[in-house]
Amino acid sequence: MIIVLKPGVTREQVDQFSADLESRNGVKVNAWYGEHSTVLGLLGDTAAVDIESIQAQDMVESVKRVQEPYKKSNRKFHPDDTVIDLGNGSVLGGGKLAIIAGPCSVENESQIADIAADVKESGAAFLRGGAFKPRTSPYAFQGLRASGLELLRHARQKTGLPIVTEIMSPAHLVLFEDVDIIQVGARNMQNFELLKELGKCDKPILLKRGLANTIEELLMSAEYIMAAGNDQVILCERGIRTFETMTRNTLDISAVPILKKHSHLPVVVDPSHASGHSWLVEPLAMAAIAAGADGLIIEVHNDPPHALSDGAQSVTPDQFRRISARIGEVVGVFGKELSARTDR
Amino acid sequence: MIIVLKPGVTREQVDQFSADLESRNGVKVNAWYGEHSTVLGLLGDTAAVDIESIQAQDMVESVKRVQEPYKKSNRKFHPDDTVIDLGNGSVLGGGKLAIIAGPCSVENESQIADIAADVKESGAAFLRGGAFKPRTSPYAFQGLRASGLELLRHARQKTGLPIVTEIMSPAHLVLFEDVDIIQVGARNMQNFELLKELGKCDKPILLKRGLANTIEELLMSAEYIMAAGNDQVILCERGIRTFETMTRNTLDISAVPILKKHSHLPVVVDPSHASGHSWLVEPLAMAAIAAGADGLIIEVHNDPPHALSDGAQSVTPDQFRRISARIGEVVGVFGKELSARTDR
Amino acid sequence: MIIVLKPGVTREQVDQFSADLESRNGVKVNAWYGEHSTVLGLLGDTAAVDIESIQAQDMVESVKRVQEPYKKSNRKFHPDDTVIDLGNGSVLGGGKLAIIAGPCSVENESQIADIAADVKESGAAFLRGGAFKPRTSPYAFQGLRASGLELLRHARQKTGLPIVTEIMSPAHLVLFEDVDIIQVGARNMQNFELLKELGKCDKPILLKRGLANTIEELLMSAEYIMAAGNDQVILCERGIRTFETMTRNTLDISAVPILKKHSHLPVVVDPSHASGHSWLVEPLAMAAIAAGADGLIIEVHNDPPHALSDGAQSVTPDQFRRISARIGEVVGVFGKELSARTDR
Amino acid sequence: MIIVLKPGVTREQVDQFSADLESRNGVKVNAWYGEHSTVLGLLGDTAAVDIESIQAQDMVESVKRVQEPYKKSNRKFHPDDTVIDLGNGSVLGGGKLAIIAGPCSVENESQIADIAADVKESGAAFLRGGAFKPRTSPYAFQGLRASGLELLRHARQKTGLPIVTEIMSPAHLVLFEDVDIIQVGARNMQNFELLKELGKCDKPILLKRGLANTIEELLMSAEYIMAAGNDQVILCERGIRTFETMTRNTLDISAVPILKKHSHLPVVVDPSHASGHSWLVEPLAMAAIAAGADGLIIEVHNDPPHALSDGAQSVTPDQFRRISARIGEVVGVFGKELSARTDR
Repeated sequence: MIIVLKPGVTREQVDQFSADLESRNGVKVNAWYGEHSTVLGLLGDTAAVDIESIQAQDMVESVKRVQEPYKKSNRKFHPDDTVIDLGNGSVLGGGKLAIIAGPCSVENESQIADIAADVKESGAAFLRGGAFKPRTSPYAFQGLRASGLELLRHARQKTGLPIVTEIMSPAHLVLFEDVDIIQVGARNMQNFELLKELGKCDKPILLKRGLANTIEELLMSAEYIMAAGNDQVILCERGIRTFETMTRNTLDISAVPILKKHSHLPVVVDPSHASGHSWLVEPLAMAAIAAGADGLIIEVHNDPPHALSDGAQSVTPDQFRRISARIGEVVGVFGKELSARTDR
Repeated sequence: MIIVLKPGVTREQVDQFSADLESRNGVKVNAWYGEHSTVLGLLGDTAAVDIESIQAQDMVESVKRVQEPYKKSNRKFHPDDTVIDLGNGSVLGGGKLAIIAGPCSVENESQIADIAADVKESGAAFLRGGAFKPRTSPYAFQGLRASGLELLRHARQKTGLPIVTEIMSPAHLVLFEDVDIIQVGARNMQNFELLKELGKCDKPILLKRGLANTIEELLMSAEYIMAAGNDQVILCERGIRTFETMTRNTLDISAVPILKKHSHLPVVVDPSHASGHSWLVEPLAMAAIAAGADGLIIEVHNDPPHALSDGAQSVTPDQFRRISARIGEVVGVFGKELSARTDR
Repeated sequence: MIIVLKPGVTREQVDQFSADLESRNGVKVNAWYGEHSTVLGLLGDTAAVDIESIQAQDMVESVKRVQEPYKKSNRKFHPDDTVIDLGNGSVLGGGKLAIIAGPCSVENESQIADIAADVKESGAAFLRGGAFKPRTSPYAFQGLRASGLELLRHARQKTGLPIVTEIMSPAHLVLFEDVDIIQVGARNMQNFELLKELGKCDKPILLKRGLANTIEELLMSAEYIMAAGNDQVILCERGIRTFETMTRNTLDISAVPILKKHSHLPVVVDPSHASGHSWLVEPLAMAAIAAGADGLIIEVHNDPPHALSDGAQSVTPDQFRRISARIGEVVGVFGKELSARTDR
Repeated sequence: MIIVLKPGVTREQVDQFSADLESRNGVKVNAWYGEHSTVLGLLGDTAAVDIESIQAQDMVESVKRVQEPYKKSNRKFHPDDTVIDLGNGSVLGGGKLAIIAGPCSVENESQIADIAADVKESGAAFLRGGAFKPRTSPYAFQGLRASGLELLRHARQKTGLPIVTEIMSPAHLVLFEDVDIIQVGARNMQNFELLKELGKCDKPILLKRGLANTIEELLMSAEYIMAAGNDQVILCERGIRTFETMTRNTLDISAVPILKKHSHLPVVVDPSHASGHSWLVEPLAMAAIAAGADGLIIEVHNDPPHALSDGAQSVTPDQFRRISARIGEVVGVFGKELSARTDR
């Protein structure tokens, strides 16, 4: 961390400030005296140093972090890719490209069972489906909740596909014991109390980027889970909010190579939520693979116009079969292999 | 709600779609046939109609909501201002301008007690202070938690000022029984499970706008609390995320008159978080009053450089006294009166 | 265009407003009377109807455009792809993928000539290079201007590569007579007087999307050029401004399939400006091809650290050769063929 | 300017790089060697140093500018406020609050003359009106152009009010010789060729902030005009683009105190364009004054529903009279005096 002091600060002030920084933060401070300004360099582990309390000092002109504030999720300290392997070919990371498919919401037994069978047949390695649904309006369908989880388990029993489903409160954790991957939605990316609880689980956590969160903040939220003891985190880019209105969100495709460079965690992309339009799912899925993604989350519904949520962005099982086939044709040229189920 | 159909849709398709809409949503559908396109008008209560499932229909060109999707927070249905009156002059709304002041984090007994006494003396009607702190980094100070609430109660005992403090999880509600106003932070504005629980309380809820949330979404989150039974909601504009980097966030000053027009709930502004710089607190506070705000949240710390969080945006008790005095000089010209404590 | 009127508007008011709309806009107005509101449908060519003057009417609740406001750039009216063919294999559109490569700024004779020879050798079909440079600071290098154009012509003479270079003022048009493709930079996307002048040229115009412009506004700016008589427009996505700071801009990859769907014009992507980092050029170029782009603009500099502008995002000729080879390996799987020079 | 080098850079590399920086930029370089990294401090005038070419260096970790890159517009070097005084009480800056009022577009002789007389009567100190109109669509009304300027001069002759009107191309400068203040619109804020030409004029330039431009970029565009010789620049905040859709743009009210702190130039606010709604003009005008603005630009039209552009945001002469009266009641409490015409 580099601290630039304002002109006119005396040597005594610098010494006192340096001593204060050292005692409060357990770091070593080097002072470099220039003609017009003095620069302090903080050596040691500065991840926990509060940059704002330093900026609040009258004598400070500006502060710059040199070291990244995330450690456990940082590729510098863990060069090898984290691989999430749930068995029978359902693998995320390590050269595999996995498709996570299923409806936005679980609606009834036959809906989720039929879609699960269909997407497995077409090449999905994981089944997604929402039981607890975050909806902007309190008057909209809120999900089947506990009974939705039950229906997901039922679909897994029939198909073997591991389940990915969203949690909305630490109070519901007891219901998620039999879920394979727990998803944290975009609106809860900085629900830190939830992240801390998930850090105590021994299940993989699929963490979606918030609508207005930076890439660094996404990594810091992964860090919350990992600092609490859970190393199995999957990062998900699902679009950010911008001024553009033709898409529901703006897919930040650059986040994929940046996350892969700075972190060892698997990165998946959700082209359905990013665009909000089913016809955009295929081109954005292609772009995600080309940019280096380890997986895709694709919403599939057997009857989009009657879906209880997010119908506009769901593809039909037929469309999914074609998209999945295209993915199969393309992954090889980008050095990946499709995560394929071995229990079919 | 107005639905524009694509060209070439037959009368039979229109009839079937209309019947479907009527039976699913309990509305009445009028069809108007034009030369090139057909337009459907939905009459009745469309707040719960899922706009996305309609957009998913192949025959639909576009959908437009005419009616606002919020009802309980809507001024149309409740023309009179909601007033939050906690006694002894601590009033929000109804022509009063209230100042909520205090440190970002509660740090120790003397800190919070001293600041409370200072800000009361200078004109604050409420005491704020964070016990549970949402921090981007898991390595940063997370607040004193339960013991911070204890220190706040102690400060209230000494000064009489009602306490405003943030909740981060429904699991903590039991600790907040003796808090006067519960705050929902920007990162939890769409933590819907938390909102539902707060809807069951009989305390006022101060709801902060999320960093990337629209004004309508803020009203929909208020609606969550109100639909669950709690009518005492205070709305807070605290800046949104934009490309501008000179301020921490961009204060959306237009949100103030828009919220006051569309809702009957009190509206407060947080110039400290909006700007991130203590020197901007005064001009932004002035702008907020001029735009029609019912209250201000101002961070005050007796030693900003050593604050455990957000020091850069905190003013000192001396600066606060001057700002508060300026507010007192200005409110009258905007038709408001300063909320003044009667127990001093 | 659909106009929703406020409740309580009388039939007489509707008749008068409709007659007014018809006489002012040359359209036909159909009125549909509902229980709570009246809806007007405007039939005919509404591209020139001023939506804002309608919104200003007291009796108007809201207005919705059904028809796209762009016509000449609209694929609906011109289903076939526009192809820009400058001969000898330098082709944009129609199943070809063209690479436009070269330095941000032309700096001297050997620099541009050497880079031109290098990029041609590696597979570029066009040479780019800036002679007039839009710089944020008046104190930064402003380009070699007229003599830069001269050096570009010299490089074309040696390599045969058609030249793409940016214009900044209609007053400079006389200097661009011998340029092959004239580029309009992001900051001038809505410099309408410049667009009108370019509409009178018989050269292809490469139009870059503005930093805060919507996809529809990009098409409307293309429409300015086309409405003035020039049908040869190439659209360029180069990143938009968002809150994310890890990249210079946020590449809006969704713009590629959306532009290809709504318009018949060729679409190119500039991964260099979008990201601002040379290491991101390759993954973003891959994503652009996968999303359906017709071309790529890549900054190449023989000595990035000493480039007079934008060095951080330039790749070296060696890096470019590798990226170009990767592009050659990948285009086939996306149904395209690399635009290859026949004069080598 | 502070340059942090990557770990492992040798002393020799540092020496060579430092020598290179000194010879290229005319600055002095101090090197401070730390345990893990080396930091270079550049002393002297770094305004023209190209930060990007430094970032392109392999050995560079990051670069931080300490000195602001703007000089002539910087309050540090010109502590006194710039005052624009056009005589007879039409004054911007120096404790005066001036209202610039008039229609979006000049439409005909009586329209502009009547509005001019009305707004003067109500307290405006300047007359605005568009003759050259930047419109998103080539099919929309483009302004009366030269004859619009003629009508503005006519209105000035009758009322004495100085004219503010927008220029769109350097080629039109010859027509603007008799204009009092030349406006640069938001879309042309970085039309650098235009700015350079305006720097050669001896007229005040009202420079509007671009939709996606930072406060620093606005100051850099002012710097273009000033570096070319024209010191009379007025800065205008008129809203930036964000995700919020309830307003046309988001008024960045914080820009007002920030511009006043960092620059000596007068700052005006345009609440009409910022909001896009006439009912928001008054509250936003109040907020602007409270935040420290030196002036307001308010669109006034005698018949908003039939305005040829931007009707929805125009107030009527009656509404303007009331707003102007409110402004008169409020300015005093913020230490300003209304700029009042002495020739009435």
